[in-house]
Amino acid sequence: MSRPKLQDVAARAGVSVTTVSRVLNDRGYLSADIRRRVAEAVAELGYRPNEIARSLIGQKSRLVGLIVPTVADPFFGELASRIEGELASKGYKMLLCDCLENAEREAEYLEMLQANRVDGIITSTHNRNVEGYDRADAPIVAVDRRLGSDIPIIRSDNRTGGRLATGHLIARGSRSAVFITATDHPGNDRAAAYRETMRDHGLDPRVLAYGYSTPMRQRRALIETWLMDNDADGVFASDDLTALMVLEWARKTGRRVPDTLRIVGYDGSRAALLAMPGLTTVRQPIDALGARAAQALIRRIETPDDDRESRLAAEAPLPVELHQGWTS
Amino acid sequence: MSRPKLQDVAARAGVSVTTVSRVLNDRGYLSADIRRRVAEAVAELGYRPNEIARSLIGQKSRLVGLIVPTVADPFFGELASRIEGELASKGYKMLLCDCLENAEREAEYLEMLQANRVDGIITSTHNRNVEGYDRADAPIVAVDRRLGSDIPIIRSDNRTGGRLATGHLIARGSRSAVFITATDHPGNDRAAAYRETMRDHGLDPRVLAYGYSTPMRQRRALIETWLMDNDADGVFASDDLTALMVLEWARKTGRRVPDTLRIVGYDGSRAALLAMPGLTTVRQPIDALGARAAQALIRRIETPDDDRESRLAAEAPLPVELHQGWTS
Repeated sequence: MSRPKLQDVAARAGVSVTTVSRVLNDRGYLSADIRRRVAEAVAELGYRPNEIARSLIGQKSRLVGLIVPTVADPFFGELASRIEGELASKGYKMLLCDCLENAEREAEYLEMLQANRVDGIITSTHNRNVEGYDRADAPIVAVDRRLGSDIPIIRSDNRTGGRLATGHLIARGSRSAVFITATDHPGNDRAAAYRETMRDHGLDPRVLAYGYSTPMRQRRALIETWLMDNDADGVFASDDLTALMVLEWARKTGRRVPDTLRIVGYDGSRAALLAMPGLTTVRQPIDALGARAAQALIRRIETPDDDRESRLAAEAPLPVELHQGWTS
Repeated sequence: MSRPKLQDVAARAGVSVTTVSRVLNDRGYLSADIRRRVAEAVAELGYRPNEIARSLIGQKSRLVGLIVPTVADPFFGELASRIEGELASKGYKMLLCDCLENAEREAEYLEMLQANRVDGIITSTHNRNVEGYDRADAPIVAVDRRLGSDIPIIRSDNRTGGRLATGHLIARGSRSAVFITATDHPGNDRAAAYRETMRDHGLDPRVLAYGYSTPMRQRRALIETWLMDNDADGVFASDDLTALMVLEWARKTGRRVPDTLRIVGYDGSRAALLAMPGLTTVRQPIDALGARAAQALIRRIETPDDDRESRLAAEAPLPVELHQGWTS
């Protein structure tokens, strides 16, 4: 059977199309009997109101775009899951845009989302110089990313996270801990906190940055070569997968963890801690990050005149905590 | 500035609205000069054709829904990433529906997707008795899930995977390997292959099923208690996170891996093998599964009259392979 139309519902209920429409939109006076007859016809025919048509009339698509590096990464997977859950609970749908660390692809997604009249966009990638955010007409919220003074940033406290991890390694006895990260730039608060904390203790900071676009195999080779060539008694990795990679290298090369090498990761995704609860790591509040990002975007969509102060107040970084495992 | 309209483009180009529409839809005769003027006006004003309105006219939304247990799981995260990438390359957008192992939520998503006139749905959850698939009017493709004789299943070769893992454990010397899985039901080909292979070698199969809805902490407690109470010299886990959980238990309790306990996982997601390349596991071809699922759905959408034989031929299970690590 073809998809039932409004006309079919009207015929089945024995009322006019206008009456069906009034029932569905709860407009004007309608007797209980008519409401019941229309409801029954809708149920019997399996009629579904056309949400797309409604969004055209209402000028709201209740559609949000999420741009992430990739949900294949457990941190972004969990973040996307949480954002989608929060949006769904408020009646919003989410288009997933998995841009695979590619700036060009990200710019295309940005165009596509606006052509599809999304109500808003949440973005959480690391690409630099992506064109289009400055002239986007949909409200945007960024997760842990600075895009422009008008775009709220939802993030956790990277500076405290960096201090916690580095301070912990030093307290456990490390004197030559290295910080491993994707990119080392002035906006990297974890790197800044690592450097500060090392210097506060009279120790020399060393940062190994492998670059976001480095393929996984090469990344591993790069990190292993560095660890072979440079003596380090501690590793603070900016994400848990890298920390686990170092742990596996230690096993392979006979380094004793934590006696001769202490390892601390970052993120604390459910998947990482499920697989490896013994990993010491800085836990980000991924649930709270996702919920707050969705809520901030919905606020921008539904109350665009909301004053900027209150929006920025929502941006205070969320707290992180050290999860102590046996690797440190 | 408010969003530019078709009228604004027409005014800027000095042509009629009808002419702009003809240029945008490439219909009828148009001089090179007029094409150029309209193109320039579109670029200058940043005009974006309304894709939603277009989909209403064309009756195609180019929108697909993906229903998964959760992208917070590295296997489903990687699968979703691959499906979205393939869909995007063919001009389709993807709504992510993360149903958190909840059958009621899945049924709601199914309704929502159809109310939003998606062109098709890809589903890959483990929920039983979800209502609505039988009366869905959008084409559906299932990943590793049997829903009905009309719904194609894209999957990899679970039977061979189960045989490879079990045969490998036995070849390495295990005599009392246990199979750990979420649910042990007649459709679980990995469980069936494990039982067959054990019996072929005159060994007693033992299956530990923890249940999909068991929270993570409880799952860990359940598995650890079982391993404490039952002597097993091998573990074949139906997913890598569980295998890694067992590995961590072995470390904690002083079991030597692989000497006294051999461990084999399943899935081989990029994240799992990046973090733990030493894990022996059965690798599913996640890239091929995702690409094939997207392609099969697009074929159902674009050539609905395509004969059923060729659709079913596309369903031959994809090959799996054993990745040999140090855990076995």
